[in-house]
Amino acid sequence: MGVTKGRVTIPTDVDVVPETLELIRRWGADAIRDCDGTDYPEELKKIDAKVYATYYTTRKDNVWAKANPDEIQQCYIMTKFYTANSDTLTIHLMEGIYPEMLKVNSRDDCKRWWEVVDRTAGAVVETDRWRYEEETGDVILSAEPFHDYTVSFLAYIMWDPVHMYNAVVNDWKDVEHQITFDVRQPKTHKYSMERLRKFCRSNPHVNVIRYTTFFHQFTLIFDEMAREKYVDWYGYSASVSPYILEQFEKEAGYPFRPEYIIDQGYYNNQYRIPSKEYKDFQAFQRREVAKLAKEMVDITHEEGKEAMMFLGDHWIGMEPFMDEFKTIGLDAVVGSVGNGSTLRLISDIEGVRYREGRFLPYFFPDTFHEGGDPVKEAKVNWVTARRAILRKPIDRIGYGGYLKLAYQFPEFISYVESVCDEFRTLYENARGTTPFCFKTVAVLNSWGHMRAWGAHMVHHALYQKQNYSYAGVIEALSGAPFDVRFISFDDIRENPHVLRDIDVLINVGDGDTAHTGGREWEDPVVSCAVKSFVYNGGGIIGVGEPSGHQFEGRYIQLGTVFGVEKETGFTLNYDKYNWENHKDHFILKDCTKEVDFGEGKKNMYAHEGTEILIQREKEVQMAVHAFGNGRAVYISGLPYSLENSRILYRSILWSCHGEKDLNKWFSSNFNVEVHAYVQNGKYCVVNNTYEPQHTTVYRGDGSSFELDLDANEIIWYEI
Amino acid sequence: MGVTKGRVTIPTDVDVVPETLELIRRWGADAIRDCDGTDYPEELKKIDAKVYATYYTTRKDNVWAKANPDEIQQCYIMTKFYTANSDTLTIHLMEGIYPEMLKVNSRDDCKRWWEVVDRTAGAVVETDRWRYEEETGDVILSAEPFHDYTVSFLAYIMWDPVHMYNAVVNDWKDVEHQITFDVRQPKTHKYSMERLRKFCRSNPHVNVIRYTTFFHQFTLIFDEMAREKYVDWYGYSASVSPYILEQFEKEAGYPFRPEYIIDQGYYNNQYRIPSKEYKDFQAFQRREVAKLAKEMVDITHEEGKEAMMFLGDHWIGMEPFMDEFKTIGLDAVVGSVGNGSTLRLISDIEGVRYREGRFLPYFFPDTFHEGGDPVKEAKVNWVTARRAILRKPIDRIGYGGYLKLAYQFPEFISYVESVCDEFRTLYENARGTTPFCFKTVAVLNSWGHMRAWGAHMVHHALYQKQNYSYAGVIEALSGAPFDVRFISFDDIRENPHVLRDIDVLINVGDGDTAHTGGREWEDPVVSCAVKSFVYNGGGIIGVGEPSGHQFEGRYIQLGTVFGVEKETGFTLNYDKYNWENHKDHFILKDCTKEVDFGEGKKNMYAHEGTEILIQREKEVQMAVHAFGNGRAVYISGLPYSLENSRILYRSILWSCHGEKDLNKWFSSNFNVEVHAYVQNGKYCVVNNTYEPQHTTVYRGDGSSFELDLDANEIIWYEI
Repeated sequence: MGVTKGRVTIPTDVDVVPETLELIRRWGADAIRDCDGTDYPEELKKIDAKVYATYYTTRKDNVWAKANPDEIQQCYIMTKFYTANSDTLTIHLMEGIYPEMLKVNSRDDCKRWWEVVDRTAGAVVETDRWRYEEETGDVILSAEPFHDYTVSFLAYIMWDPVHMYNAVVNDWKDVEHQITFDVRQPKTHKYSMERLRKFCRSNPHVNVIRYTTFFHQFTLIFDEMAREKYVDWYGYSASVSPYILEQFEKEAGYPFRPEYIIDQGYYNNQYRIPSKEYKDFQAFQRREVAKLAKEMVDITHEEGKEAMMFLGDHWIGMEPFMDEFKTIGLDAVVGSVGNGSTLRLISDIEGVRYREGRFLPYFFPDTFHEGGDPVKEAKVNWVTARRAILRKPIDRIGYGGYLKLAYQFPEFISYVESVCDEFRTLYENARGTTPFCFKTVAVLNSWGHMRAWGAHMVHHALYQKQNYSYAGVIEALSGAPFDVRFISFDDIRENPHVLRDIDVLINVGDGDTAHTGGREWEDPVVSCAVKSFVYNGGGIIGVGEPSGHQFEGRYIQLGTVFGVEKETGFTLNYDKYNWENHKDHFILKDCTKEVDFGEGKKNMYAHEGTEILIQREKEVQMAVHAFGNGRAVYISGLPYSLENSRILYRSILWSCHGEKDLNKWFSSNFNVEVHAYVQNGKYCVVNNTYEPQHTTVYRGDGSSFELDLDANEIIWYEI
Repeated sequence: MGVTKGRVTIPTDVDVVPETLELIRRWGADAIRDCDGTDYPEELKKIDAKVYATYYTTRKDNVWAKANPDEIQQCYIMTKFYTANSDTLTIHLMEGIYPEMLKVNSRDDCKRWWEVVDRTAGAVVETDRWRYEEETGDVILSAEPFHDYTVSFLAYIMWDPVHMYNAVVNDWKDVEHQITFDVRQPKTHKYSMERLRKFCRSNPHVNVIRYTTFFHQFTLIFDEMAREKYVDWYGYSASVSPYILEQFEKEAGYPFRPEYIIDQGYYNNQYRIPSKEYKDFQAFQRREVAKLAKEMVDITHEEGKEAMMFLGDHWIGMEPFMDEFKTIGLDAVVGSVGNGSTLRLISDIEGVRYREGRFLPYFFPDTFHEGGDPVKEAKVNWVTARRAILRKPIDRIGYGGYLKLAYQFPEFISYVESVCDEFRTLYENARGTTPFCFKTVAVLNSWGHMRAWGAHMVHHALYQKQNYSYAGVIEALSGAPFDVRFISFDDIRENPHVLRDIDVLINVGDGDTAHTGGREWEDPVVSCAVKSFVYNGGGIIGVGEPSGHQFEGRYIQLGTVFGVEKETGFTLNYDKYNWENHKDHFILKDCTKEVDFGEGKKNMYAHEGTEILIQREKEVQMAVHAFGNGRAVYISGLPYSLENSRILYRSILWSCHGEKDLNKWFSSNFNVEVHAYVQNGKYCVVNNTYEPQHTTVYRGDGSSFELDLDANEIIWYEI
């Protein structure tokens, strides 16, 4: 029956000691954690389980913060656009921002660190044409009538965004707002190392310092009604201060401009094709943050404890897929698992001893209330993430929040008990090996390896109407039997051989975004490398507007490769006769209904010679095209579903001439998947649905057998 | 009962003399015409009616064309994109072109007049790196592997495109292909004037020379299967030759490049924001064409005949709304009427004595065959165009094609008889006056007055999926009680007062097109003029992606005016809370069903403070926003229908604070319209549907009465 204990972390609190003990037994938990707003019970300090303590490097010490207001963390903010209706314009900086969260930084030289920008002319307003009025909080500028202006300014973070979020969601009353201080700055740096050491020594029962997290919060701003106003899980705009920026200037060798961070108000988000200056800044931050994190990790080790990083909150500069990360010496990473992609965000991390996934639902009142259905959420979460775990397992699973709440749902307690057992079995069978991969697939975008699995995440795994049709491709890949890589346009420029051992390239997203590359396609080195790759037999899959960028007579820059183009109006004069659907294609063979392209794309058409698989109302949704020895597949969008996962699977095989590999480690029913761990002599068949399924299972040699599976069931076999 | 004769033109042929005579009586026709492929019957030469003779200045004289092959007309053609897969690339110039239509011009210096362009690098290939092989028709070039190349070359037009079209549609057998010769060139110029004089003298029975048309055909190319390949009713790419281009170079003062015409393969079509060079070329052509046309018109007059121009075919350079046109001295213009917009293309022309509309259906076998329903087509055509005639009447109506075919449909003959009577009554009542206009509305785009009513026409009035949602606005305006103007961005730059007597501005189309302006919005002169106009009380209506162009942190450049933005992904990180619909608005008061936005727009959202009238699935389709004293209306698309016409009507009134004018010269039922001719003391109430209608009619003083109308009925009243 496999291992019945271990690899599970549970939360606790002073008022749930017996419940904690019961769960240690039933779930086989071997680690206990506290949470934001809980305390660790005295009675459990001697228990036979690891104890994690959340540790906040940058908050939970207002005495220090208030005594050192110059070292409070800062962020760059751009106001909205204001139109001048005369030759003077007044802009109130804090309009639309929660007043207790941010405070304008007028301590440092505004004229040096702020920018007033004329967005109509695209020009910076000279500093002698504006002034800041401390009393009113306004910038007053000498304007050109009817030009639009913005102000980019620095503000102190007077209420830590995550603390504020937790307070608002849990309706905490009368909590003092935790101020975020900046460990990068000299006084706070010194103080923080001493504070950490003190914490370690005064908490001998703690085995693991769970950093939440290190130094810079991802961008998270609240509006005047305390609602979320702006969020970017990868955002760097709250990692700035004159102190840091002056160092950056020295390293970069060119003067800093607020616009490098402000980016027209777009703050260099996931969709933005990153500028050289932004990439420089990120690299600088990563190096500095890693150095400082290592100091803390070293102290942790000196004090005989493990260092675990939470993948989130103040994690900016800690990108775990970048080289700096491995130098830090962390023991572990823990992150929240929203789906398969977020699972792989954790499980693909190298340079730590173990990785833990915190599963949903979080034991918060938003789910655990009367009438709530935490079992359903838990099932969806587990089954969705399990696909990815089977490709690349995490080492531990865990839960967070308030145990008291979860305990009121015995069915939930019982379901998670089964999950824990299933996870341990899975881990034993899959550990230490790489599951069988049919092909090597590389996703090409502006972020590459740095944002592997995460480039389509605006706020972790949250749904966005504008990106689910693209993020679905990444989600499908997270549980698919391929070696998945993430490469950037810079990678292609720096290393012409980077495509050499790739079977299939994927470019997915809207045109003129970092996801598809936009102006990067104006670089012949990039476009020719990709065309050469396909011409010489490679496969390519484009989803949405692959290589979309208006340049030299085309929108789809890989037009000769994909054989499709977007009708922008510029080619309406060309008659189009190629509209016949060819649904009888290898890629569509398992479809049970009309393909769901999600948001799809309007206005795509196919050139002569392109084989349209599906067009609707004369808008091409799916087409294939040969280019030299290679094959291209165009898909307008592919939200995640098991049926769409199969379409992507077949597209990948077809595009690299791999049709013959179809009936190996394969389930005829796409609701069921097969994963093989050849080195360990095991394979499993897994039902990814909440209903029983029947399928034909194909082994690696092509032989097959019929199988019935229960809902969610996973069955392990020896090879 | 009004006038019973006149203002009607009919076609004839040698085999339909009695039928012609009957129609002269029944339809009250006072003019007879021939057609391409018909002959004028001897028996009718003495009849009491004007006789029109179609005259082809540039074709129907192959003896001359063959004797002067150097003066055959030419056009610029760009090949498709070819990817080099080695360091040599061969491009066959005529691939995909009907071989008997065009012939590569290798007579003139290829190296001077052609261009091989590396579309991957965006660079012209040096002329010593390519050569043209006469025998194979190939360009062979020394290539960069995996770059994409195009060749821009000159070709002779060996089969006149309209002659070819007529031959293909009517299935003519064994007709000699009419070659298009170039009257602009010296030998042909001299010859053509003599030819014209000879024609006039040898056809004394002819009263009106109906030019079809002057010198340059709009762009029309056929593919290897004789299907239409490329069409642009406004296209200039078939108006070129080294002879002409050398003159242009001298006038412009800078060297000519094929790319000025080729425009990346987009040939400066309607959607393209015109370059300075293209505008220079058009102006040059207009001047030269007008000069030459005047020569012919003068000869026509000297020979005692009238000169009538057909608005179509070889009409390039004859733009009737431009100043040059009035200098030509034409007596009349005739054009095909596809809808209200095309009617206004004709009726708004100044500088001629009369304007004639050729109505549909054309007497061609595509409609007049067994099972065809020409009455239905005629009704739709007449009722659609009548709205526009009531605003700005043409002076005559007419029909074309083969009378023999029409005569087999007695119901059709009878219906048109009633149309002719109705037209004459209408003309008497409306003549010489301007119908009452509530407001002055200006459509702002890159083409302005030059393409008044026509800027959304790809091929005259033909439907295009990508533009009917925008062209619908122009169609609605063609019959609406407004003074409608068309202004360009250049107009605003050249004359800051151009907006002074405008009530409402309209910007309609997709972003980054000539219809909405694209990069023109980067010019503060343009954007500030518009913002100032609205701020000071003007109305603005944006349809589709008004002012759409990615620049300085926004896609909708008039973002502070319209209060809406397009989600390109760049602002996904901003939370959006403004989604409430406010359907109870003045603009929507007459709606009977969900508004039809046609193709609509995806991804539009509204800023705080904007009042959303309609959003669907969190995509804003209609919203209103105050800006200073002005008001802005955003609509995602508005295909033509009577209900949408009413929405536009109310939008216009609302946007310029004109709600109080609603119940004047107004019908409560939007299927019925009211037009007042105050100077003539008349007004009419017109049912635009094919069913009876009931309505409340409001007079100019706001008093009202109830009215029932028959299908299509028009009722005239004295004021």
